Amino acid sequence: MRGSPLVRKLVSLALEEDLALGDVTGELAVSAEHRSSARIVARQRLVVCGLEVISMVVEEARFSLEVRQRSRDGVEVNGEEVLAELEGPTRQILAAERTILNFLQRLSGVATHTRDFISAAKGLTVLDTRKTLPGWRLLDKYAVSVGGASNHRLSLGDMVLVKNNHIDAHSHGIRGALERVSGSKPPYMPWEVEVRNMEELAVALEFRPTVIMLDNFPNEGIRAAMQAIAAAPQRPLVEVSGGITKERLAALRELGVDAVSAGFLTTHAPNVDISMRVNTTYYAA
Amino acid sequence: MRGSPLVRKLVSLALEEDLALGDVTGELAVSAEHRSSARIVARQRLVVCGLEVISMVVEEARFSLEVRQRSRDGVEVNGEEVLAELEGPTRQILAAERTILNFLQRLSGVATHTRDFISAAKGLTVLDTRKTLPGWRLLDKYAVSVGGASNHRLSLGDMVLVKNNHIDAHSHGIRGALERVSGSKPPYMPWEVEVRNMEELAVALEFRPTVIMLDNFPNEGIRAAMQAIAAAPQRPLVEVSGGITKERLAALRELGVDAVSAGFLTTHAPNVDISMRVNTTYYAA
Amino acid sequence: MRGSPLVRKLVSLALEEDLALGDVTGELAVSAEHRSSARIVARQRLVVCGLEVISMVVEEARFSLEVRQRSRDGVEVNGEEVLAELEGPTRQILAAERTILNFLQRLSGVATHTRDFISAAKGLTVLDTRKTLPGWRLLDKYAVSVGGASNHRLSLGDMVLVKNNHIDAHSHGIRGALERVSGSKPPYMPWEVEVRNMEELAVALEFRPTVIMLDNFPNEGIRAAMQAIAAAPQRPLVEVSGGITKERLAALRELGVDAVSAGFLTTHAPNVDISMRVNTTYYAA
Amino acid sequence: MRGSPLVRKLVSLALEEDLALGDVTGELAVSAEHRSSARIVARQRLVVCGLEVISMVVEEARFSLEVRQRSRDGVEVNGEEVLAELEGPTRQILAAERTILNFLQRLSGVATHTRDFISAAKGLTVLDTRKTLPGWRLLDKYAVSVGGASNHRLSLGDMVLVKNNHIDAHSHGIRGALERVSGSKPPYMPWEVEVRNMEELAVALEFRPTVIMLDNFPNEGIRAAMQAIAAAPQRPLVEVSGGITKERLAALRELGVDAVSAGFLTTHAPNVDISMRVNTTYYAA
Amino acid sequence: MRGSPLVRKLVSLALEEDLALGDVTGELAVSAEHRSSARIVARQRLVVCGLEVISMVVEEARFSLEVRQRSRDGVEVNGEEVLAELEGPTRQILAAERTILNFLQRLSGVATHTRDFISAAKGLTVLDTRKTLPGWRLLDKYAVSVGGASNHRLSLGDMVLVKNNHIDAHSHGIRGALERVSGSKPPYMPWEVEVRNMEELAVALEFRPTVIMLDNFPNEGIRAAMQAIAAAPQRPLVEVSGGITKERLAALRELGVDAVSAGFLTTHAPNVDISMRVNTTYYAA
Amino acid sequence: MRGSPLVRKLVSLALEEDLALGDVTGELAVSAEHRSSARIVARQRLVVCGLEVISMVVEEARFSLEVRQRSRDGVEVNGEEVLAELEGPTRQILAAERTILNFLQRLSGVATHTRDFISAAKGLTVLDTRKTLPGWRLLDKYAVSVGGASNHRLSLGDMVLVKNNHIDAHSHGIRGALERVSGSKPPYMPWEVEVRNMEELAVALEFRPTVIMLDNFPNEGIRAAMQAIAAAPQRPLVEVSGGITKERLAALRELGVDAVSAGFLTTHAPNVDISMRVNTTYYAA
Repeated sequence: MRGSPLVRKLVSLALEEDLALGDVTGELAVSAEHRSSARIVARQRLVVCGLEVISMVVEEARFSLEVRQRSRDGVEVNGEEVLAELEGPTRQILAAERTILNFLQRLSGVATHTRDFISAAKGLTVLDTRKTLPGWRLLDKYAVSVGGASNHRLSLGDMVLVKNNHIDAHSHGIRGALERVSGSKPPYMPWEVEVRNMEELAVALEFRPTVIMLDNFPNEGIRAAMQAIAAAPQRPLVEVSGGITKERLAALRELGVDAVSAGFLTTHAPNVDISMRVNTTYYAA
Repeated sequence: MRGSPLVRKLVSLALEEDLALGDVTGELAVSAEHRSSARIVARQRLVVCGLEVISMVVEEARFSLEVRQRSRDGVEVNGEEVLAELEGPTRQILAAERTILNFLQRLSGVATHTRDFISAAKGLTVLDTRKTLPGWRLLDKYAVSVGGASNHRLSLGDMVLVKNNHIDAHSHGIRGALERVSGSKPPYMPWEVEVRNMEELAVALEFRPTVIMLDNFPNEGIRAAMQAIAAAPQRPLVEVSGGITKERLAALRELGVDAVSAGFLTTHAPNVDISMRVNTTYYAA
Repeated sequence: MRGSPLVRKLVSLALEEDLALGDVTGELAVSAEHRSSARIVARQRLVVCGLEVISMVVEEARFSLEVRQRSRDGVEVNGEEVLAELEGPTRQILAAERTILNFLQRLSGVATHTRDFISAAKGLTVLDTRKTLPGWRLLDKYAVSVGGASNHRLSLGDMVLVKNNHIDAHSHGIRGALERVSGSKPPYMPWEVEVRNMEELAVALEFRPTVIMLDNFPNEGIRAAMQAIAAAPQRPLVEVSGGITKERLAALRELGVDAVSAGFLTTHAPNVDISMRVNTTYYAA
Repeated sequence: MRGSPLVRKLVSLALEEDLALGDVTGELAVSAEHRSSARIVARQRLVVCGLEVISMVVEEARFSLEVRQRSRDGVEVNGEEVLAELEGPTRQILAAERTILNFLQRLSGVATHTRDFISAAKGLTVLDTRKTLPGWRLLDKYAVSVGGASNHRLSLGDMVLVKNNHIDAHSHGIRGALERVSGSKPPYMPWEVEVRNMEELAVALEFRPTVIMLDNFPNEGIRAAMQAIAAAPQRPLVEVSGGITKERLAALRELGVDAVSAGFLTTHAPNVDISMRVNTTYYAA
Repeated sequence: MRGSPLVRKLVSLALEEDLALGDVTGELAVSAEHRSSARIVARQRLVVCGLEVISMVVEEARFSLEVRQRSRDGVEVNGEEVLAELEGPTRQILAAERTILNFLQRLSGVATHTRDFISAAKGLTVLDTRKTLPGWRLLDKYAVSVGGASNHRLSLGDMVLVKNNHIDAHSHGIRGALERVSGSKPPYMPWEVEVRNMEELAVALEFRPTVIMLDNFPNEGIRAAMQAIAAAPQRPLVEVSGGITKERLAALRELGVDAVSAGFLTTHAPNVDISMRVNTTYYAA
Repeated sequence: MRGSPLVRKLVSLALEEDLALGDVTGELAVSAEHRSSARIVARQRLVVCGLEVISMVVEEARFSLEVRQRSRDGVEVNGEEVLAELEGPTRQILAAERTILNFLQRLSGVATHTRDFISAAKGLTVLDTRKTLPGWRLLDKYAVSVGGASNHRLSLGDMVLVKNNHIDAHSHGIRGALERVSGSKPPYMPWEVEVRNMEELAVALEFRPTVIMLDNFPNEGIRAAMQAIAAAPQRPLVEVSGGITKERLAALRELGVDAVSAGFLTTHAPNVDISMRVNTTYYAA
């Protein structure tokens, strides 16, 4: 889990939306002195992801619960495996329960979904996109990496990616846009150009970008593009985007592309089932 | 879209995670004076949800884009339908594009997923849960309501729900817990009791809660429970939770329960496909 | 004291307004190493309220003071009773003193004022309103409940209350407004209708709201209203608002209303006198 | 109304506590297109205070209401006088109503309470204290000044005030504390010393502070102190604190003190009655 | 280091700008369990300033590093002197390193620059100004005081300073402006008047301000001004501003002025050289 | 000026530190209705930088001032040139004056300092570092780029830089560290290795990083290193850091290095002189 202040803000917001008006049931039903232990348990096969968030929830809520991790991010477990344990005031356990589970179910869901897809990649680099849940950019990307795929750029500020819209906004088209960019970009920052056809590819290759993105190319189009790229003075990395499916991965690998990028790693990952079991036989006045 | 400050905080966080280091490509590739218009377009059949968030993104980013809604939340559209239009500085359109689409794809995804499920409910009330994405509580619940289902409580503070963990934390079990709660809860606040068996149901009915939740009861168990409930001095509303499927709805309706609650409305809703088309033939110095 | 993030924000704001430019006297007059203990003492008869806020002030200020509660919220004490003790760096005690006392004096003030009023209620439910100090909603409502009265809704989001302004904004008056509301409100959320006369009451009763609020009805008007309500197919709870005085409570009880709501619990509660006594004979290098 | 960011934070918090879960009634009962005008009206004699806060509430809520002030802070009005008008979406008027009124009722309450006390001061300077509502420091002090009294220091950072606790924390008592302070305080910053008896007064005068505070001195003690002060090489300002009543002001003025400080200006000021009247005959599609 | 919430906000912002996207190198190159100790070392002669900020960085980042100060603010050290030590997870040390050093280098830079200038003041009070780095007001002023100069007002809210622009904004010039101010300013708040010539000085003296600021007066002009001031009924403090140099201080002292104010203490202070040495021979699993 | 939320937070903090207690002089000396225009004027030769921050200050303060830019970032101007104009309420102009100037003086100071250094680079890439003012990362880096130098990485999250401390933290030294990093870094992210000697260089070259940083190498050492680098299978970019001076640039260029990095661009840049001239002959009731 990356130690970014942005993640803490999301945790804080999650607590606020659930606790802005307090936890009325906990305050009514449970005495302030009552203490419990609780286990967080996988209810299905899943790739564990997000265990550190448990402590972050406890910390942001200013709770005094003791947290013990019983598994590790990236491990594949089956149902009934214990992922972590909590111990402390029962009111705090119950107030934090839903928030903790909601985080773990999404994070492990993305990691599990990614792991399943990756199994067919066999060496082809699989990249995520910026199609992450608003507020969840770093967490979703962390889950993707735990699942075994790789991170594309994290934000609009850490890598140049010249897309169709940038090209079309320039009166001299792709050449005009790339002249602007290549002449003044920060020298170490990688840059990528998205191309829609062989003409744009030819121009892009002249500027020697770090990566070429073939956008929605069919396999035959990719074959032609790879030949043009091979003939370029400096071979960029080649990424294919659009229409990526598990079934197509073998063909893409064979075509010699370096990477594919796939939004569905984060847009179509269902939550996995994780629950909390509170053990109230433990009691300390 | 509810006018809550919490939603604005999520929008603000979403912008921050994408723009903390600026939009390096937009600043390099597009001149500050360049202007465009853009259309937000559905790419598949979907239930529109979240159009107001477009203005909120523009506002939180302090952008000067003009936003025009071209559809309405709750409407079912097919692919290629225009949902909204933007006009203004191209840099701002490109900097906001991904954030706006990420919001709309999730919100319309939940609304569409809910609408599909609701079609089989035929009058049975379908409720969401607190299994929403952390940071997204109000938005997810809004999308559920746009999809046609109903909102259960919004947070831990607006309704009492005595669950198994509250009961087990009490040395005198369900009777002890309900005595604490019923005697001191805010008088107008609704309260619900989750029961696991007929014994707990019998005790719960003595306390005349607003709602009884039958937790993971099979259909035959529900039948028995409904008889006991019918014999109670004051009939509470009856909610069934756990194991809800589209196929089971007819049977539940026939058994006379008032409502079902289903976490998958928000935990298993895939994003729908919505994209932005920038029209750069529009140009104003 | 409810564990809401909103309360922590108020505590944080209170510290900021006093300490934005530092504590110049403490830094000049007292050495960083000097340590003291201090007692927080009631200076008059009062109902204790808000002891938890002491720790919250210390925590939000990132101070290292040890806090020991010596009383309990809700207890009625006389002058000179010790409510809590602090121990640690003298600079921190002096920097936190005024903020802590300002919180306790208001909170105990509202609790004491409420307790005094409640003594005449003899079983009639006394409710607060949303006429709380801006920023203090949860704290003021907590103090009212510590004083012995009950909480009406906490915010605009946790209960429906159709007021005159909602009715007048509808072209078909009360019937139009109630049709809108009753058909689409969240199913478990309680709802209340404020009526100004017998005609509005008659319409409201048709819709079977959870609560009817008789707004500024004289006692004879209430008598007539109670008869109409008794004849309704489903008897709602009845709340009287406007012109509530201690003297009128017996008559209202006799008329059979369920509850009264009174803004003055929070708008007319003077602070009570609580002070801090620093004991500097305790000294540790 | 001071233009401080701290005031905006309080306004923001006030909106959040009321609107965190949205305004459920307004959204259900009133259509998004409905528009109204509204008048804010005094319901009793009062000193107007806080009109600027109306715009701040509208602005922080990102509402599009037009606000027109119809009175001025500091003016004394009678019941039924219109203080301000609002116009725009009815939902926004109703969502902002309670927050606006809660601010105005407190601020005008403090101003009115202060004005009443000040009427007996006849030239004696009356000062407030730091016994303001947590979160309300600048607003309470603004209201005191609108009421006609003067502001003592605003916070712990803008003036030195050596109090008993600072003195007692010093192993060499008042002389030790004043040596520390007088030698190193920022040169332009005013400084005040609180004394409990003639001995402390004698030492304090040696250090030539800006102000001497006579803490809980009876009138005869003040007379003796004034003689000692008159004999000092440099006469400081003299403030009396503790036991200030309206009846005692004439005697204190006669004794020649410069100022009195009184916490009750902010701790015992009841809210005044101000309400909003929505006029829905105005309607624009 | 003042305990102001504003300083904590700057520390938090500093961490956010460096860590918003995480510390990718630390996470890749160093294992989560690796631990180190580190020494913060002066690399040149300097006046130490800001040691407390080390703990604040650690605290705001929620790191678990142990911090030990090995020097004291205000001490003059030479190269290779150890200022502080850190111990704990290596990842945290490396993630905090640059932020800590950036703070210390600026703060010690201002303190050292001030100390050098102060050496020529020989009793003349040297004041800073509000020309501090945005976001750094309290820190820059703290560093100036550690360097040996004095703080002028901290903000626009803690002292009145009537400047040329205020005077020119008044239709009756300086007399009009001073009448407004002197009649209604908070009674204890010090006030200063900036004058540009003998005529303005004459008017200002009538109003008996706490301080007169001679703005850009040559030495001969100051001599004349001092005579006029000496003849005034009450001698204010005299501050000279504009064109202050180390060489001119002796002459100004001799002219009898009380203080000079100099923006360059904070606008022209270069950072000093301080570095961190990580000792990785310390290792604990 | 980058459109990052982090910059807005710094602007907001800058306003808060100056205005937390309001602008007491402006409120006393100037009527609320008084209006002025003002020019922001260069007082020396400088490279203009930061004009957009003027609008940001006005916006964050919620002021209604009209801002007109009269120059452009990057332009070199001489004294007396007008950079921008403001018009609106005089109180707002005076309240914003110091904050605006403090921003412009630092930003233009860094840009001017950079431009002066760059003049000797003649094609050699000059890079900044992360030695920026805490809170000012994006602004300092923007000013460096306006001055004509290039930006190294922006934060710990957008590029891998393996430094000595990372190497020393690894039990197998540089080879161990680079194996960890090169095997799992995000595929497009550039990575750099800092080497202290020829042995480390030899190992680093095996891993084919994007950039090699020669840390504190003398010119002869650089010559040897360049030969080893030329013989490597893939030539990385070469950056020299430590001991960079204007005089040494020609030699470094001749040695064939690609870039130098220099902390002093941001650590030793004095503010430049810019002031505001308020024109009060403009007056509108």
